[in-house]
Amino acid sequence: MSHENEENKVRYRRTQSVTRAEEITKKESKQRRSQPDKPCHQPRDSLFSWSSGFNNFTGLVNWGFLLLTMGGFRLVLENFIKYGIRVDPVQWFVVLTGRNEGEGHPSLLLIFYSIVPILICLIVEKGLAADILMESAGMIVHVINIVVLVLIPMVVIHVKGQTFSLVGAMTVCFIYCILFLKMWSYVQVNLWCRTRYKHRRSRSGRRQSISIAQLQNEREHEQERTSNGNGTIPNKEKDAVPKLVHYPDNLHLKDFFYFLLAPTLCYELNFPRTSRIRKRFLIKRILEVVIGVHIVMGLFQQWMIPSVRNSLVPFSNMDLTKTAERLLKLAIPNHLMWLCFFYLTFHSFLNLMGELLHFSDRNFYSDWWNANNIDTFWRSWNMPVHKWCVRHLYIPVVELGYSKISASVIVFFISAFFHEYLVSVPLKTFKIWAFMGMMAQIPLSTVSKFMEVNYGHRWGNIVVWTSIILGQPLAIMMYYHDYMITNYSDVVA
Amino acid sequence: MSHENEENKVRYRRTQSVTRAEEITKKESKQRRSQPDKPCHQPRDSLFSWSSGFNNFTGLVNWGFLLLTMGGFRLVLENFIKYGIRVDPVQWFVVLTGRNEGEGHPSLLLIFYSIVPILICLIVEKGLAADILMESAGMIVHVINIVVLVLIPMVVIHVKGQTFSLVGAMTVCFIYCILFLKMWSYVQVNLWCRTRYKHRRSRSGRRQSISIAQLQNEREHEQERTSNGNGTIPNKEKDAVPKLVHYPDNLHLKDFFYFLLAPTLCYELNFPRTSRIRKRFLIKRILEVVIGVHIVMGLFQQWMIPSVRNSLVPFSNMDLTKTAERLLKLAIPNHLMWLCFFYLTFHSFLNLMGELLHFSDRNFYSDWWNANNIDTFWRSWNMPVHKWCVRHLYIPVVELGYSKISASVIVFFISAFFHEYLVSVPLKTFKIWAFMGMMAQIPLSTVSKFMEVNYGHRWGNIVVWTSIILGQPLAIMMYYHDYMITNYSDVVA
Repeated sequence: MSHENEENKVRYRRTQSVTRAEEITKKESKQRRSQPDKPCHQPRDSLFSWSSGFNNFTGLVNWGFLLLTMGGFRLVLENFIKYGIRVDPVQWFVVLTGRNEGEGHPSLLLIFYSIVPILICLIVEKGLAADILMESAGMIVHVINIVVLVLIPMVVIHVKGQTFSLVGAMTVCFIYCILFLKMWSYVQVNLWCRTRYKHRRSRSGRRQSISIAQLQNEREHEQERTSNGNGTIPNKEKDAVPKLVHYPDNLHLKDFFYFLLAPTLCYELNFPRTSRIRKRFLIKRILEVVIGVHIVMGLFQQWMIPSVRNSLVPFSNMDLTKTAERLLKLAIPNHLMWLCFFYLTFHSFLNLMGELLHFSDRNFYSDWWNANNIDTFWRSWNMPVHKWCVRHLYIPVVELGYSKISASVIVFFISAFFHEYLVSVPLKTFKIWAFMGMMAQIPLSTVSKFMEVNYGHRWGNIVVWTSIILGQPLAIMMYYHDYMITNYSDVVA
Repeated sequence: MSHENEENKVRYRRTQSVTRAEEITKKESKQRRSQPDKPCHQPRDSLFSWSSGFNNFTGLVNWGFLLLTMGGFRLVLENFIKYGIRVDPVQWFVVLTGRNEGEGHPSLLLIFYSIVPILICLIVEKGLAADILMESAGMIVHVINIVVLVLIPMVVIHVKGQTFSLVGAMTVCFIYCILFLKMWSYVQVNLWCRTRYKHRRSRSGRRQSISIAQLQNEREHEQERTSNGNGTIPNKEKDAVPKLVHYPDNLHLKDFFYFLLAPTLCYELNFPRTSRIRKRFLIKRILEVVIGVHIVMGLFQQWMIPSVRNSLVPFSNMDLTKTAERLLKLAIPNHLMWLCFFYLTFHSFLNLMGELLHFSDRNFYSDWWNANNIDTFWRSWNMPVHKWCVRHLYIPVVELGYSKISASVIVFFISAFFHEYLVSVPLKTFKIWAFMGMMAQIPLSTVSKFMEVNYGHRWGNIVVWTSIILGQPLAIMMYYHDYMITNYSDVVA
């Protein structure tokens, strides 16, 4: 502080002397200009001196991005020189369709099998709504059904591991995870509705004058009121205001499948809808998905596989310098692929599904690239999962009477479990790197908040980016290393 | 255009429907919120969709600079893994002091010899001022003196090439170039002053009543008037207004040497001066020079030499892909070194000299990093040379009656000559790559202006940066290639 004060004083003194000096300079320069030697000098500071007050360095942003582009282009050239062209669309076809799977395509079978838990879920809901099933019995069936759903891929892939391709196993795990979350949401929302519905019915039962048919009538009347209430809306658009669906009218297969296909994990009875499919928008998204998948596959074969392979030996030997070099080399293609993957999944694919299904809430991601701390990043990069966690886990746990901290911890652990699940089950190596990676978010969050508070938003944002760019390749190297040790230990040794 | 119009119309239509839809949504959402299924969706666009109007991507600037830093760090690691530590201060000492020069340190001798043309110049000026020498005879001596000055290093280094170290030869050429420019300026300014002085004296001679002593008196009176005229300035500062030196009082060794040491190439009789030496400023600049030189030397040994060496074979074989890869690999260290060199020379060293000599015009560089075209860059990166060119070449040529274009061409060719001189003479390979490099600035300038006009400032600036980053390593590769072919042709073949 005292140093700063001193500098300020010096600056002040200098400013004073400058103004007085200016008077002198004015007279002097007038006199000097009349001299025959054509003077061309005048007292000035260099631009880099802080006393010059100059601070226009906008050109350096162009400089940075130019260096980045050139560095990237050089890496591409180097890659082609070292490895030649490795892109091979035939291989993609084999990997994607699971041609190297065992007879009968076990992944496809498992995906088709998922219709069974879905139907069980719907039937139980119907039974509960019609009072055929007891509330507690229905819930027990639901819980067993959902837990079994998650366990199926684990067990099947573990037992019949050899017949699964990696991509097939990953797809199965991914789809079963999403089904788990969606069915949880479906059951919970229907429970909320049923509670209200039965509460009303029992109240009307107490009054004894209103029959169930009357209640039905009342509901229809309510619907009519809401749709007629909008007097300002012209006739044509009146039809655009959809009549709301009420419990238990929602319990049919079409509605359930719409929810299972819709780009959201949170069930509700009346999703906001668009009035039409924008054809140009749809075509753009389809093109993005088709071209983007090819780019990601090409990058993966050409750039990612050699980098991961090269990282194995230094990582195995615990050679720190070489490991760091490999990590940084792997970080760039991995990060680019992650960005492509993010855009393809969260923008192109989910918007495509939304457009096709007339689903109008497209809030699939928030501006995580500006996130100033790790917490904000996790809250904004994957909105469907974030919304599900808040609506179906955090708030219910808090409403049960637990503290907010315990609710956060529960959300966090379940999230860590699913990260581990999505990686370990397809790789058939039950390591805990993904789980540890999620755990590492706690100290990282502290660090990023500390940086944000003490050094400003920029540094919080830089910590977030660093963890994104470096965290993933580190995890990939660990998994690849362990995978190779397990399956081809002779090569590494 | 029609496509854009269509998009605008679509946008307009959408905005209209949005406002109408908002009314519906408001009522609808109120109604929906009362539902028991706790709705959490609402119609929204994804942030990447242009219809969302979102444009906050500030985090991406951090992302860019982070990737740049990480890429740089990886290159450093890769370099250490490949080449080990090559930094060797003993070698710097040998190179800098010219220990590997022949007996008698020919570079040092040549530098000391420069006192001879300096003294000749001053003596001729004195003779001219005292009317001992004829004007035309004096000018002929001056021209011969200055031309010989430039030729000396050329001839000596060519004849006794083996005894010179590269750094020694470069230093000699550099110092002789600067001397050439400074002496030209000195002679020309004194010519301007002498013309006015003799014009006045002849006028007073015509009047015949005023003796030279009286003229002297008049001048002193004028000086007194100017220093007394500043009535507003307090006594203490009255002394701060320096009395102006008039021709021919400036013609003595001390004044000439001050000019030769001062960080400018343009002579004038009364340089603007600072009142005191800022000690903290001076210490900072000294530290920068000392530490900076070590960093540049270290970078050169560790990074530059291996990159240049590795570039030789692909360049020789005309393998385009590999040459491009090598060029980009060389570009990064070369560019960093150039930036260090620029800062050290134009900020640290020239400010150091200025501070020591109380020289107050520190305008050694302008903001070339923001330059939007090549011309602006050349006008702003090296202010001393730019000022010299304008004052002593461009304006005099224009005043002689030539067009501005021919004046520019003359400036350009002399500049190209000195670039070639500074490279070819020390390397003893008279190739024309530096000259061609300067010539390439003409089409480049057209390109950069085209980009600036058609695509905006940003693209002009990017062209400037590209030419800086890629042009130099290309020239270095060419010179190194030719140097090796000439001296070690068996290795390359």
